[in-house]
Amino acid sequence: MTRDLPNLNVSPELLGQLMDELSTFGATAGGGLHRLTASADDGKARNWLSNKFKEYGFRSYTDSVGNMFGVLECSGPDAPILFSGSHLDSQPFGGRYDGAFGVVAALISVRTLSQWFETENIRPQYNLGVVNWTNEEGARFAPSLLGSKVFAGSLDEHEALSIQDSDGIELRTALKDIGFAGADKPPKNIAGYIEVHIEQGPALEQAGKKIGVVEGNWGTAKYQITFEGKATHTGPTPMSARIDALLPVASLILFMRKLSDETDGELLTSVGRLDIEPNSTNVVAGRVKLYAELRDIDSERLKKARDRLEEQVKALTTDGIQSTLKCVVDRPVGQFDPKLTDVIEKAAESCGYSSMRLHSVAGHDAVAISGVVPSAMIFVPSTDGLSHNENEFTADEDLLAGANVLAQALGLLATDSLS
Amino acid sequence: MTRDLPNLNVSPELLGQLMDELSTFGATAGGGLHRLTASADDGKARNWLSNKFKEYGFRSYTDSVGNMFGVLECSGPDAPILFSGSHLDSQPFGGRYDGAFGVVAALISVRTLSQWFETENIRPQYNLGVVNWTNEEGARFAPSLLGSKVFAGSLDEHEALSIQDSDGIELRTALKDIGFAGADKPPKNIAGYIEVHIEQGPALEQAGKKIGVVEGNWGTAKYQITFEGKATHTGPTPMSARIDALLPVASLILFMRKLSDETDGELLTSVGRLDIEPNSTNVVAGRVKLYAELRDIDSERLKKARDRLEEQVKALTTDGIQSTLKCVVDRPVGQFDPKLTDVIEKAAESCGYSSMRLHSVAGHDAVAISGVVPSAMIFVPSTDGLSHNENEFTADEDLLAGANVLAQALGLLATDSLS
Repeated sequence: MTRDLPNLNVSPELLGQLMDELSTFGATAGGGLHRLTASADDGKARNWLSNKFKEYGFRSYTDSVGNMFGVLECSGPDAPILFSGSHLDSQPFGGRYDGAFGVVAALISVRTLSQWFETENIRPQYNLGVVNWTNEEGARFAPSLLGSKVFAGSLDEHEALSIQDSDGIELRTALKDIGFAGADKPPKNIAGYIEVHIEQGPALEQAGKKIGVVEGNWGTAKYQITFEGKATHTGPTPMSARIDALLPVASLILFMRKLSDETDGELLTSVGRLDIEPNSTNVVAGRVKLYAELRDIDSERLKKARDRLEEQVKALTTDGIQSTLKCVVDRPVGQFDPKLTDVIEKAAESCGYSSMRLHSVAGHDAVAISGVVPSAMIFVPSTDGLSHNENEFTADEDLLAGANVLAQALGLLATDSLS
Repeated sequence: MTRDLPNLNVSPELLGQLMDELSTFGATAGGGLHRLTASADDGKARNWLSNKFKEYGFRSYTDSVGNMFGVLECSGPDAPILFSGSHLDSQPFGGRYDGAFGVVAALISVRTLSQWFETENIRPQYNLGVVNWTNEEGARFAPSLLGSKVFAGSLDEHEALSIQDSDGIELRTALKDIGFAGADKPPKNIAGYIEVHIEQGPALEQAGKKIGVVEGNWGTAKYQITFEGKATHTGPTPMSARIDALLPVASLILFMRKLSDETDGELLTSVGRLDIEPNSTNVVAGRVKLYAELRDIDSERLKKARDRLEEQVKALTTDGIQSTLKCVVDRPVGQFDPKLTDVIEKAAESCGYSSMRLHSVAGHDAVAISGVVPSAMIFVPSTDGLSHNENEFTADEDLLAGANVLAQALGLLATDSLS
């Protein structure tokens, strides 16, 4: 089976066409995407992918939480499968590249590679697959990485299906409504997973590199912290009788920033969301849920910051205020599969693209499944490091580079050209 | 026409029955009300009032912003009208007394008084009326006191109808949907307006008094302050590249409390609502609108606090943050009609209830219309001063006292027994 692999250049026209088609579902006036998990627009994007699976000859499987797998039998029916993919859901008024590009890159790479196999009459050692993971963003249904976590066994399927959005709609209902509450089991015998994604940070752009070879991920802790006060009229209620849940919340937002400032910004902290009840001008806040995140590549520093956050929440639980603190994500600093990482680096070199090794700060589906499937990631540059924003942008030539490196890496693995 | 007025006791059974019936529309599991303006439940409550108007022989008028007027002709067709009333809308998960009691007290007082006129064969100098003002709370549609402001000419009718709720639904559409976008003009020739309301503060309870004779209102300023940052990923975005709109917001919440603390709590300040965009865990807040209120009976102290707030917003507009500040309510310290206030005090005395004079801290429809119609208010105690909360409570005997004093005051005016 050992033979030399040529450069498998994907078609720039087809890549552009696929991105354009997919970007219409949930398109915003501001040039971005508003395609929340299991919304009508997510349903349209999923139907588009189903149709591509059919058109390109994939067998398709949808599991109970809506993860969509397409398998192209290039080897035999029992051959292990090399998967690639990402997610079709977006942040509210997010960008058109985050997730969507990883699915398109997988589709076009697998198609390009399989056509080369046919032309050359090659039977590779792997079948090839494309996956769309459900609710990566965690915007409509918390937590994020939901579909990949269920696949990996780190989140219970029934628990996941019972999660409600802010209108009280369960994921199971939302998936049924768009026709993607599947009955299939995920394919077995998965040999590996490579995900292409925009970097969402400025490192590649600043270093002037085309390809990020992602070695692993930062540690991340996410908390949901609830402060309970007492809802009452903001007018006649004397100040001394008010128990205002927004006051400890305001203090904690500033404290979170201080934790980062004390490390000169190396520890990343944020509060991006507050659920305020009743959130009415004339009513003292009775209950506020605050969503806090901490990220660091240094496990020790992350641990210390988490301890200090937990102490601070206790210190703010005074004057009639009640609080609860729940850690909802505890993702340790992790490493991707070294063999896959090396293959990606070799593929970039073979395609003639400059590359650098880095770690992912954000969580990705590849991180969620890396405990059960050998996994790795390819990053392409994000202009100004901007993401989760309608102005998120990656240049066409960088998208092409990412898809080419993916096709090359899958080709190297499938044909064992490394050996 | 001068003659002695007996004590016009309203029926405690009918009062209880009316309160019970009305409390079913939008009833919450927690014993309160969730009856937002022009919601389906508001529509049911309005239909109930329409039916009472019919049953009790009122002529009814609904104006373009949904204000409902019922007029009982006790004198001649051209006689001036004494109105009483309040509002049927509630805060989100608010209480069953705020507003609703004022409408019920008006209904039962007018009915009791008119029945006495009939029995005694008296033709009074006034006709009597009951009013339900639209969107007093300002919870679904901002600003508050919307219907009474339009009536008073301080808010444009077309502007009011174009106001949108947080789902982008205009008031005009919401009113049409429940059948209360009226075509009537409000009745003319209104001689005066007396509103009964729960105090929503602890002053009556603490002083052990049954009836509050409301002399006037505190000054109130309400602001909508918007901070603009940049929505971006909370993971890979370096701290130095983030422009987080929640940081100045957190500082301002604490500053607002400090303004009050510096006056030992005499100046009342609050931030009850934040509109955060996109309000997603993984996204740095790109835009936050903060709703701030300041209230004081001392005009000078209020002015100083407002100046300091405006300076503070400027001081927080740094590091890439943009801000706008809009004053949406600027209500000066005010006085109710002294003659009506005296009549209420006399009515309480004649009914044998202890009373005290006080000022309203909260805004009320009576305040909004006091510039165009002689107006006054009667307060009854609120247990623990709690309001805008499902546990808001006023004892039956205090409700009865409020309704009796209203009937007596209307009777004194209509029969000119004071002369």
